[in-house]
Amino acid sequence: MDFELTTGIAVLERTPPALRAMLAGLPPAWTDATEGAETWSPYVILGHLIHGERTDWIPRARIILAQGPDRRFTPYDRHAQFHESRGKTLAGLLDEFAVLRARNLATLTQWGLTEAQLGLAGEHPEFGPVTLRQLLATWVAHDLGHLAQVSRVMARQYREAVGPWRAYLPVMDR
Amino acid sequence: MDFELTTGIAVLERTPPALRAMLAGLPPAWTDATEGAETWSPYVILGHLIHGERTDWIPRARIILAQGPDRRFTPYDRHAQFHESRGKTLAGLLDEFAVLRARNLATLTQWGLTEAQLGLAGEHPEFGPVTLRQLLATWVAHDLGHLAQVSRVMARQYREAVGPWRAYLPVMDR
Repeated sequence: MDFELTTGIAVLERTPPALRAMLAGLPPAWTDATEGAETWSPYVILGHLIHGERTDWIPRARIILAQGPDRRFTPYDRHAQFHESRGKTLAGLLDEFAVLRARNLATLTQWGLTEAQLGLAGEHPEFGPVTLRQLLATWVAHDLGHLAQVSRVMARQYREAVGPWRAYLPVMDR
Repeated sequence: MDFELTTGIAVLERTPPALRAMLAGLPPAWTDATEGAETWSPYVILGHLIHGERTDWIPRARIILAQGPDRRFTPYDRHAQFHESRGKTLAGLLDEFAVLRARNLATLTQWGLTEAQLGLAGEHPEFGPVTLRQLLATWVAHDLGHLAQVSRVMARQYREAVGPWRAYLPVMDR
């Protein structure tokens, strides 16, 4: 599928309510569960998504749109949530994510991006030139990847509890 | 994590609203998307979950609880949704799933299962003896596996659109 603004935004606007429907009010046994040392819980993943709203997607889009002399992106801090979420409840993070996402989508919509603008490039610290279109497609895919991760992390808590059915549940081991 | 009724039900009751938040009103480009021939779209997955509500989880639990002479389960028809969903809209399937799930959870709660009952066994057509506890844990894990699948199938539609970021998105190829 080619990236197209309307269909992409349709996913981006659904991620906060989807996470709320999945996680709000769940016992910490689920929301703090991980896949082992150095892996992320639903709570940690939510903090990571919030960090992206603040520092990644829209700030990078602004760098591209400005087409200034230095179009290099600041690297994404994949550990920021470990201090930024400190002391915050899951319910608070769900609210924070919803507010930030709504604000960012309002900005994106207000830009009324043209095809030409979607083709403009910035400089990724590792990959080199990347287009605004690729950045926005990645925003969508990044959401979906982490939604899949939340469900997978939770499913795996029952790896033993399902007994022989484990063989029929690819989510457990794949 | 051991299976425990309250924490298990907390997930089961969230699956219909989670799927609704993810899918309701989305363009068919997302809801009919697959990972290739013989793989399932979000629309097909939803039909599969509905079939399970009708024929699998609670009916199998009843067989176990009855402890009759024949405790063999009817095999799960993994293709039933291809004819059962025919002519139905995604919105209609979301409603149908929510109604069936609510009814099944009402039944489950009303049973007030004891630890002893959770330890009773039925006969899986392939695995042989399985306990009610394992069946109920599998119901939860099956939901979560398919939620993960829905997000993964959607993410992969942007496999090309994300350009070089594909290398940073494990959901695309793993």
